Amino acid sequence: MSPAPAPWAPGSGLPEARMTAITTDSSLSPTLELAMELMRRPSVTPDDLGCQDLMIERLSRLGFQVERLPFGDVENFWAVHGHHGPVLAFAGHTDVVPSGPHVHWEYPPFEPRIDAGGMLCGRGAADMKGSLAAMVTAVERFVAAHPDHPGRIAFLITSDEEGPAVDGTRAVVEHLREAHDRLDYCIVGEPSSTERLGDVIKNGRRGSLGGVLHVKGVQGHVAYPHLARNPIHQVAPALDALAREHWDGGNAFFPATSFQISNIRAGTGATNVIPGEVEVVFNFRYSTELDHETLKSRTEGILEAHGLEYHLDWTLNGEPFLTSEGELVDAALGGVEDVLGHRPELSTAGGTSDGRFIATLGSQVVELGPINATIHKVNERVRAADLDDLSRVYEAILMRLFVDDSART
Amino acid sequence: MSPAPAPWAPGSGLPEARMTAITTDSSLSPTLELAMELMRRPSVTPDDLGCQDLMIERLSRLGFQVERLPFGDVENFWAVHGHHGPVLAFAGHTDVVPSGPHVHWEYPPFEPRIDAGGMLCGRGAADMKGSLAAMVTAVERFVAAHPDHPGRIAFLITSDEEGPAVDGTRAVVEHLREAHDRLDYCIVGEPSSTERLGDVIKNGRRGSLGGVLHVKGVQGHVAYPHLARNPIHQVAPALDALAREHWDGGNAFFPATSFQISNIRAGTGATNVIPGEVEVVFNFRYSTELDHETLKSRTEGILEAHGLEYHLDWTLNGEPFLTSEGELVDAALGGVEDVLGHRPELSTAGGTSDGRFIATLGSQVVELGPINATIHKVNERVRAADLDDLSRVYEAILMRLFVDDSART
Repeated sequence: MSPAPAPWAPGSGLPEARMTAITTDSSLSPTLELAMELMRRPSVTPDDLGCQDLMIERLSRLGFQVERLPFGDVENFWAVHGHHGPVLAFAGHTDVVPSGPHVHWEYPPFEPRIDAGGMLCGRGAADMKGSLAAMVTAVERFVAAHPDHPGRIAFLITSDEEGPAVDGTRAVVEHLREAHDRLDYCIVGEPSSTERLGDVIKNGRRGSLGGVLHVKGVQGHVAYPHLARNPIHQVAPALDALAREHWDGGNAFFPATSFQISNIRAGTGATNVIPGEVEVVFNFRYSTELDHETLKSRTEGILEAHGLEYHLDWTLNGEPFLTSEGELVDAALGGVEDVLGHRPELSTAGGTSDGRFIATLGSQVVELGPINATIHKVNERVRAADLDDLSRVYEAILMRLFVDDSART
Repeated sequence: MSPAPAPWAPGSGLPEARMTAITTDSSLSPTLELAMELMRRPSVTPDDLGCQDLMIERLSRLGFQVERLPFGDVENFWAVHGHHGPVLAFAGHTDVVPSGPHVHWEYPPFEPRIDAGGMLCGRGAADMKGSLAAMVTAVERFVAAHPDHPGRIAFLITSDEEGPAVDGTRAVVEHLREAHDRLDYCIVGEPSSTERLGDVIKNGRRGSLGGVLHVKGVQGHVAYPHLARNPIHQVAPALDALAREHWDGGNAFFPATSFQISNIRAGTGATNVIPGEVEVVFNFRYSTELDHETLKSRTEGILEAHGLEYHLDWTLNGEPFLTSEGELVDAALGGVEDVLGHRPELSTAGGTSDGRFIATLGSQVVELGPINATIHKVNERVRAADLDDLSRVYEAILMRLFVDDSART
């Protein structure tokens, strides 16, 4: 990849010149300046600590209509610019995962800096204060150039993506649903890239369905097995059947649905006691070929076929979603190609994100953000120049969706 | 059952008179006096606290040759009376299981007493200081009546039956084996009776073989199952096969060999992590149709047939033993019938005892003692009159084995 000129240094194509530009505070790009201002706030879930105030101040100045939507102890906001036409929302979170002991970090996690190698270091650099800053500066440039742009630009920001995720995006989405607010396209700033910026765009995620199974037996002494009923013996063939089951074959965008047992536990430690109960914790990651009700009834059918006396608690962590094609995917693929010169791969792999909630509005959803190699780890970092490039990619997507009609394919 | 006259009250056939006799200290029977003296010593495993001194003093007075055999922190002794002919050993232990908090007891556990209902109350009443006292007084009466009895009478006493059982009877038996000492018959004083004294004599025990199985997988995230190998999924069909296996059909004296899983454990509690290992703890109770090497190799064959990467630690708790017939069983059945008027049932059910070690000498072994309903529990107790009857049963067995040849069938 050949880095394009930084937007604040028009015409500068020299990497050396650019490196200098971003390693002295006086010449930080607006994106890096805002990213570092956000990163100085140790906003561990669900704390926001003024991050959203910073964003709201910038967006209000552009003419955004801002609606603060606190739920429980979670800060959220929804902001819109423009008056008619399709809505493109930038979605993200100001909360970060805990840093752990600071001594394990090369630099203090909440004192962001750009190191000699050009890496922006600190908690939230990649997940996802860097993306938030890139979104804000992209929109600032776009609105400055196109004050009367067609379509509407929105922000959907929460401070609880890394935690329970109940009073965050999920609650805001329910609010939008009740208000019949439109949300056509959504770019989630999750760090989707793996090796280089924009190599992967997530255009969906598998569903996640959890189960906690308790199988009851009859406790007893191993010397008197006829007086007991061993629940481990009873559950073993059922677990084998669940593990072997062909749930589906996946499809063009999703691998086959997978069932995994994460925990199993029975017995007190005494070696001469047949336990009275066994607990099994399992999880489905499932494709759009199935829904959670089907998974539940098929699971229960297998348990019942094995004659188990059981209790089963289900948790639906997220339904699968998929934006297989359409204007947003086209604009995102094209926007990356415009700025970075390579075409991303579409993927639905990996864990869940708030995209699962937004997709329930019927929106087209993609996740596009920086390289995720260091997220949730000590020494979280991201290439500083990548955030400037990311801002330009976001701007290019706005152009493709709302201005450059000819670019739509 | 009609209670026979107490040995210290010849001719007294009245239950009332007898109850009076045992509820005032001045008229306690020698058996109850000795039992209570032993029970006043809180000899929790492996402590003996002078119990063996008491027994040795009594036996020495009768002319027993006593050999103290301490191993580690365990007190043991071996004592013999007589000079030629077959050896009948009384075997038992002076240690008791802990009492737990005394407040849970009706009476302090180490302050033995006979309550208004004629029950001797306190830790060790049933398991097995009552039996020890009955053995000593039975031998005292027998030797007094037959000072030049044929055969030899022995005592094999330990203070570690309820604990690790390594430096106790097992070590004494090895000592006897090395010394080529003879041990033809052994009566273990374990509380074998269930509903009434002498209703059950144990003439064998199943073997006990324990295993701790670790199956290795590859840890990973549930979202990326293709990068992991779930050891719970792998072990489930193997456990099912082990649980369904027909190990043997048992025989006339033993039920079929049984396999039971007592504990299973995998996972850290995190619901999104495929664990790297699963631990399974299991136990075989096995009949004399099998030996432990056969069980091990058949188990390992099943694990290998399932392609598991595993580590398996075995513990042989005890080989099965059986005294299916012979002089000792005949004498024990007859002795109970002589004194109590009913014929015991022979059984090999239940847990293990030190009989497993003694049987390896090729001895005939039976377990015969008081009712086991309260052993290892709070408010351990035994009918006081039963201990006097038990002493007479032991004496009757000595008579049948060594004196009353005509009684042998």
